[in-house]
Parts: sequence; structure tokens; C-alpha cells
Amino acid sequence: MGRIILTGDRPTGKLHLGHYVGSLRNRVIIQNTWEYDRMFVFIADVQALTDNADNPEKVRQNIIEVALDYLSCGLDPSKVTIFIQSMIPELHEMTQFFSNLVTVQRLQRNPTVKSEMAQRGFHDGAEDDNRRGLPVGFFTYPISQAADICAFKSTTVPVGADQEPMLEQCREIVRSFNTTYAPVLVEPEIYLPANMVCRRLPGTDGKAKMSKSLGNCIYLSDDPKEMEAKVKSMFTDPGHLRVEDPGKVEGNCVFTYLDAFVEPGDFEKFWPDYASLDEVKDHYRRGGLGDMKCKKFLISVLHDRLQPIRERRHFWEQDIPGVYEILRKGSEAAREVAAATLHEMKDAMKINYFDDAALIAEQAAAYKA
Amino acid sequence: MGRIILTGDRPTGKLHLGHYVGSLRNRVIIQNTWEYDRMFVFIADVQALTDNADNPEKVRQNIIEVALDYLSCGLDPSKVTIFIQSMIPELHEMTQFFSNLVTVQRLQRNPTVKSEMAQRGFHDGAEDDNRRGLPVGFFTYPISQAADICAFKSTTVPVGADQEPMLEQCREIVRSFNTTYAPVLVEPEIYLPANMVCRRLPGTDGKAKMSKSLGNCIYLSDDPKEMEAKVKSMFTDPGHLRVEDPGKVEGNCVFTYLDAFVEPGDFEKFWPDYASLDEVKDHYRRGGLGDMKCKKFLISVLHDRLQPIRERRHFWEQDIPGVYEILRKGSEAAREVAAATLHEMKDAMKINYFDDAALIAEQAAAYKA
Repeated sequence: MGRIILTGDRPTGKLHLGHYVGSLRNRVIIQNTWEYDRMFVFIADVQALTDNADNPEKVRQNIIEVALDYLSCGLDPSKVTIFIQSMIPELHEMTQFFSNLVTVQRLQRNPTVKSEMAQRGFHDGAEDDNRRGLPVGFFTYPISQAADICAFKSTTVPVGADQEPMLEQCREIVRSFNTTYAPVLVEPEIYLPANMVCRRLPGTDGKAKMSKSLGNCIYLSDDPKEMEAKVKSMFTDPGHLRVEDPGKVEGNCVFTYLDAFVEPGDFEKFWPDYASLDEVKDHYRRGGLGDMKCKKFLISVLHDRLQPIRERRHFWEQDIPGVYEILRKGSEAAREVAAATLHEMKDAMKINYFDDAALIAEQAAAYKA
Repeated sequence: MGRIILTGDRPTGKLHLGHYVGSLRNRVIIQNTWEYDRMFVFIADVQALTDNADNPEKVRQNIIEVALDYLSCGLDPSKVTIFIQSMIPELHEMTQFFSNLVTVQRLQRNPTVKSEMAQRGFHDGAEDDNRRGLPVGFFTYPISQAADICAFKSTTVPVGADQEPMLEQCREIVRSFNTTYAPVLVEPEIYLPANMVCRRLPGTDGKAKMSKSLGNCIYLSDDPKEMEAKVKSMFTDPGHLRVEDPGKVEGNCVFTYLDAFVEPGDFEKFWPDYASLDEVKDHYRRGGLGDMKCKKFLISVLHDRLQPIRERRHFWEQDIPGVYEILRKGSEAAREVAAATLHEMKDAMKINYFDDAALIAEQAAAYKA
């Protein structure tokens, strides 16, 4: 069996450059260059509701944004099945069966859930604690994520490094199901960006993570002026006061972004004074290279990367019903696959009673005897 | 809106007299004498799997036993929709959405789950603890039970008193859903047996609960000899050694069972020496009435109650495919109702995107502007 690739995003906002270098860009490369049996990309609205139950409107409005971002980046519905999670009810049934194979204790030691709880101000302490209680759906979402992966027998999940504990949880569930019932499910592998910098792009303020609430994101849908303004105000080296001062490259956002975005032809096109990023870094380190020159180069590079994305976005924005139609068709196609897997699972668990002629015949015979 | 009644049982074994006086007998009375819009009785195989994930065969084999017990007791498929839980996938989807409205802390203080955890040797302590970890599906089953109840907009749930915390959890979920989204769901009430003794019939050994593993159950499907033998060895008053000794009625199983089973005409028919159970109790208390006489009376009463049940059971045992057909038709009918409720829920949550022409038109207009 060939590779089956699956990834997705929560529709809680537009996608930004962190999503792009961490996962989206990879997906398009995979789509266009890998050998694979199938590739699925989905919009995880059900998962988004686990910590936005009181705001389904936010989720509802952002589905189209994420879909536009997908199409803008070059995901091609003729090659990739793009679907919405809530349109695949089979996932919930799988989640139910998987939840019998995982202990509460095992969920409690999932480091990704722990850090995401902290981000959201959820706590798992006593009920009289002043903070927000932990929604069960949020606590158990690694199980639901395992269902997303298993439903399509995914072999390869291109996501950020912070998702590795989720993949490990999924593999444990697969092994447990296959041992308890029958070998139906497939253990998935994570696929990480080769470029380490891309695994977690910092915000424009140098903070570890791009986050809407911190206002430190550059969105794929930003217009050129917004993007330029954000790069110009980007965090660099606070000790680099005058051009002639030596500067630090580590922790300097401009260089981190250059590491993530620069491609071989960029110097020739946009900054022929240098032949490589290493030369630029050396100059910056020894002093004599100003922040603004570096930022202008980054702006040129980002323009070059984002322009085709913007153009495709503009095209699809003019055809919103067409985008929903892509999602509807993708969801139908995905549902067929998930239903087939669920059928196999229920056969393995022997809970397809009405289709189980042998069971009925055997019990009838026992009572007639 | 009229009453909608719903109950169910886990298919982990044949049903016994505790089930009968605690719930089954009531259901048949309700079926035949109440005014109601609909009545549903279901076999909770998915719930049974939450603590029997490694033994689906047990669940699978006991579905027919519970169905036979239902029909034997007089549940009438022309009046009551009898269905199998796993045949209603909509329940899992509801469970997922409900799980966002309940905190882990709230589940942790459910007293029914606590005592059922203890019975099964599950614990929620540290992972290196030597006991069995708590399966997530078991921990969260009150949420799944709320879905069972809400899917049919049940108003009335005739179950044992130990289930009251489950109903309270369900009502909280209903209120939370209706407040957060739209008033779609209905708060259910518990309906308890009027006869207090019936709320928890002890085992034949005097232990608080009938349990297969303790071997202290009289099953509805026991043949007359098995039943007689079990009554004869029943726990009475250990201080009542000789017939002439005064005896205790409290905690004496024979009298507890008589309290639960005796009907007005029974003395005339089976023991004309007495006019009422109170007279028998008085005699027993002052001494001079032997255990065996009381047991023989109980045997006669139980024969009278169980004989029609046995006859109906025999009838249906000869038509196992017919019983499955009843379950299949009932499951189809139940699924229609659950699907309609889920559709209303998703409309309330506004996650029926593809059917939401207004959403699509509004977003298309925003991008064209």
C-alpha cells in the first residue's frame, strides 16, 4: 500500500506565515512531487468547537477563510481531497470506540494538551479553583484526532513538531485496536519540515509563537502594504543601535524569517550585493549592515512568495459558492473512505449484528436444540 | 407535547428479578396504561463496551438475551420502539458536541460513576498505581447517556434511584445547550418505582445488589427448578434457628422479595391461612412460623409471575431471526427520530454549512464588495 497523507487546521482564524512554512508549503510540495495513493486536507471545525463551544459563529465564519488559504497556497482539489470534519459523522463513532482503549491517566500526561490547556487558561484542578474548568471535549481531543487519522488509514501526517505526542497517542490506539479486535488500522508517521526554522516560526515581535491575540502574525491574506508595515516593525537585535555596531543574528526575527523563506535565486533577483544568506549574516555580525536593508530584502522575498498566493486568493474570493462546492464534493469523497474504514472496524469488533447471518443462525440453532 | 419515555439496559448478561421489579415491570405497566407520545427501550451495547472493550463477544451474545427478556416481560413492539444503541450513529455525534459543554471536574464528582468505578476496580489515581486505569469511554459515559436521552427528546426515564445523578447531568447539558445555541432539547425527569423495596432488590444471599459475579441472582430465564432451588437457599434471619423462635423481617430476603412481588389475590390463591403480608410478618416476628413455609409461598408467587414470562420467552426463542427483525425495524425507526433531533441541534449550532444558503450568499457578497 502506498502513502496516504492527511493534515488539517482548526478554522479559528485566517492562516499565517507560521502555518505556511510549518505545514502548508510542505503540503503543496508533497501534492506536486511525492508518490502517494491519496492526500486529504481537512478543516477541523469539530475540534475547533472543543474550546469554542460558545462561539460557533467564529468557527463557521472561518471555514471559508481556511479553504481560501488552502486553494491560494496551491492545494489542488483535483489531487487532494479537501473536506470539513463535521461532515464525516463516522469520525465520532470511531472516537467513541477508541475512547474505551485509552485511560484518563494516559490523556493526562499528553504534553501537547497540557501546554494548550495553559494557553487557553483551562485547568484540571479542583472545581472551586477560580480558573476555567477543562471541557471534556478538549481534554479528549487527542482521541478524536486519532479517529481523523485512522479513518483514512493515513500513513503520513505532515504537521508541526508539537504534534508528535498526538501521533504517538494515535499509534498506541492503533496498536490497541489491532491487538484487541483485528489488524484493521494503520500506524501513522509524522512528517516534519526539513528546515528546522520552519518547525516553529516566531511572531514578528520575537515571541515564540504567532498568535492572533498577540497581534504578531503576518497572514497569507494580508495585502502588500500590511505585510510591509509588519516587516518594517519587526523585532531584530535590540543591541544593534547604529549601523556600524556588530549585530546578533540568533533570535533576530528578520534572519529567522529569511532562513525560512529565502530560496537560491533570491539574491540574484533582489540583492545582488550578496551571494548567499551566510554572507549577509557575516556582514551583519561584524557590523556595517543596517536592519532596514535586511528588512527590505525580506519584504522582496515575501512579496515574491505571497504574490501568487494573493492572486489565487483573489480568484477564489470571486467564487465563494464554488469553494463550498469543492468542500462539499471533498467531504462526500472523504466520507466514503471513512465509512468503509468504520465498517471494517465494526466487523472486527463484531458489532454489525444485523449483517451477521452466522450469529443469528448460531443463536437460533442453540435455542432450538 | 406529550410524554416521551426512554429506558435501556446494558447487554452484559441475562436480566434478573432486580431488573424486573426495578424497571422492567414498570415499563410494561407504562406501556399498557399510560398516555404517551412514544416509548423507546434500548439495548445499550455501546455503553456496555466502555468497560468491556476487550470482550465484545460477551456484549454481542447478550443482545439477544436482553431482547428475549424484553419481549418475555411483555414489551410489545407494536407499542414500544425497541432498538440497539450502536445502530444509531447520531448518538456519537451528539456526545461529541455535548462533551464541549461539560468539564472534566463535573464528571469527576458524579457519585454513580464513582461507585461504578469502584465496583469494576477502575481508579483515577496516578498511573503507576497498581489498579486498572480508568477508560475514557467509561469516565465520560454520563455524556453519552445524555445523548441517548436527548436524541429522542425524552421527558420521562423510568430507571433505578442510583441513576438520578445521570439524569441531573443530562438536565445540565440540556440547559447548557439550549442557552448556548437554541432551545432544542428537553429536560428529562426520572420515574422511580412507587414501591421502595423495588428500587434495589438484594441478591438471594442478602447482599445489597444482585450481581452475576456473586452468583446471587434469580434470572427471568431461570427454569422453575433453578428458581426454586435459589429461593430455598435464600438468606433469611440467621437468628431464627427454631420455628418457635421470634424472627426478623428486616434484612430477611424472603420478606424483601415478598414485599416486591406479592399482589392482592396471592393469599387467597396460594396461602389462604393469611389475609395479608402484614399478618405473615406479625406471625414470623412473634415466632412459630418456619422459613420454609414462607419460602414455599414466595416460590408460588414467583411461579405465578414468571410462568407467563417463561412462556413468552419460549415462543420467541423459536424465532430468533424474528427477534432480530424487531430490533432492526426498531433501530431504523429510532434512527429517524435521532437524526431529526441531530439536524435541529446542528441548525442551532449553525454547522449545517452546505444547507446554509444565507451564509454562502453573505460571504460571497462580502468578498465582492
